[in-house]
Amino acid sequence: PHVPYTPRRYPQETMLQRSHEFYALMNQRRSVRFLSPEPVPREVIENVIRTAGTAPSGAHTEPWTFVLVSDTETKHQIRLIVEEEEEVNYRQRMGDKWVHDLAKLRTNWIKEYLDVAPYLVLIFKQTHGLLSNGKKKTHYYNEISVSIACGILLAALQNAGLVTVTTTPLNCGPQLRLLLKRPVNEKLLMLLPVGYPASDATVPDLKRKPLDDIMVHI
Amino acid sequence: PHVPYTPRRYPQETMLQRSHEFYALMNQRRSVRFLSPEPVPREVIENVIRTAGTAPSGAHTEPWTFVLVSDTETKHQIRLIVEEEEEVNYRQRMGDKWVHDLAKLRTNWIKEYLDVAPYLVLIFKQTHGLLSNGKKKTHYYNEISVSIACGILLAALQNAGLVTVTTTPLNCGPQLRLLLKRPVNEKLLMLLPVGYPASDATVPDLKRKPLDDIMVHI
Ligand SMILES: Cc1cc2nc3c(=O)[nH]c(=O)nc-3n(C[C@H](O)[C@H](O)[C@H](O)COP(=O)(O)O)c2cc1C
Ligand SMILES: Cc1cc2nc3c(=O)[nH]c(=O)nc-3n(C[C@H](O)[C@H](O)[C@H](O)COP(=O)(O)O)c2cc1C
Repeated sequence: PHVPYTPRRYPQETMLQRSHEFYALMNQRRSVRFLSPEPVPREVIENVIRTAGTAPSGAHTEPWTFVLVSDTETKHQIRLIVEEEEEVNYRQRMGDKWVHDLAKLRTNWIKEYLDVAPYLVLIFKQTHGLLSNGKKKTHYYNEISVSIACGILLAALQNAGLVTVTTTPLNCGPQLRLLLKRPVNEKLLMLLPVGYPASDATVPDLKRKPLDDIMVHI
Repeated sequence: PHVPYTPRRYPQETMLQRSHEFYALMNQRRSVRFLSPEPVPREVIENVIRTAGTAPSGAHTEPWTFVLVSDTETKHQIRLIVEEEEEVNYRQRMGDKWVHDLAKLRTNWIKEYLDVAPYLVLIFKQTHGLLSNGKKKTHYYNEISVSIACGILLAALQNAGLVTVTTTPLNCGPQLRLLLKRPVNEKLLMLLPVGYPASDATVPDLKRKPLDDIMVHI
């Protein structure tokens, strides 16, 4: 059944101000690769994941699983898997051009943040679901839906004053899936270390494109 | 060069409250298929698109183009293209199962909102960029990056009190690209009608999965 929907409406001045303030807040977001070991209240992270779960999804399939890792030993296992694969990625799989394109970010295969961050959030897309009769349930556009959810998750982290770096660890999916005991219909899409920034954190001095370079009006 | 990064930090109580309030706000978001023709200040939409442009992207490629359409005739041309393809999608391409899965949403190929909404935002992913020497610039993970940007855009719309429905019009990309005169390296990823909801708007009575069904803690 359908139900009436009458969301909150703001006066034009308020709308304009809200849109501006939200832009200012999100524009302060940066990918941070140096995290502090300080603990973060679990309830905040849970609210952030709840927020990601409000994302739209193709045919309302909600094809996401968020694995929240705070166990020290599991974080370390994840680091070992990621660093081993990432070294091969940088040395062999990515090719000179990709490595060159990343040089300005000064990223490499050493990922200390995987031990240091109080939380790792591993985001799996469910390529299909399972119905109670054992049949497969198709998940239309699952990768796009889960990526949208991840965008909302990043906004929620920023809103709470937490930082992360969005990563897509190439070739680590199968091993991490086994380590975390996720079923075969789940594929790793992203890995986010979450916490406060280290007190001496730095970020590459990047600029973002101005509106005119990303928008066309017709 | 790298620069220090010291973002705003909130006391724990504030963090918790902010995370809760942002969840409550985002949880009120619904996909709305009945829009009002009322005009929306252009500056609000521009701030929303600016906000989407703060998203992270693979190797900072920012591989997105947002085409904002307010021209009545162009909106109508878009509607004709989408409805023609969507009718074929529903009748032939999607198959009985997909059509069945969509039945609860009561969606079909008639898209009145494409004429009615004051704005259509068509989001293109740039599958590669062009360097000044004419060579191709690879855009790593462009679809994921643009989908993340779309998630942030949806959060920004919700924050401003505007509504949309996320759509991925199957098979319409090439025609819409030509209509909007976008270059060949751009592929349509999403089409969002944006505005206020119609005063009698309804939405399917869906529930979202609780936290325990989407999160695993280790
Ligand atoms: C990738 C993606 C594609 C979608 N495609 C369509 C579409 O083509 N037409 C439509 O009416 N809704 C579409 N939707 C909206 C979903 O049906 C909607 O998000 C879902 O039913 C959950 O409802 P909610 O957004 O109100 O929470 C799409 C959503 C996503 C994330
Ligand atoms: C899909 C995707 C994959 C990414 N993969 C990595 C990664 O594997 N390692 C990393 O250090 N950064 C990764 N990043 C972060 C980007 O390098 C970063 O977003 C970009 O340089 C812009 O910087 P900003 O997020 O501070 O605006 C990724 C970002 C996206 C969206």
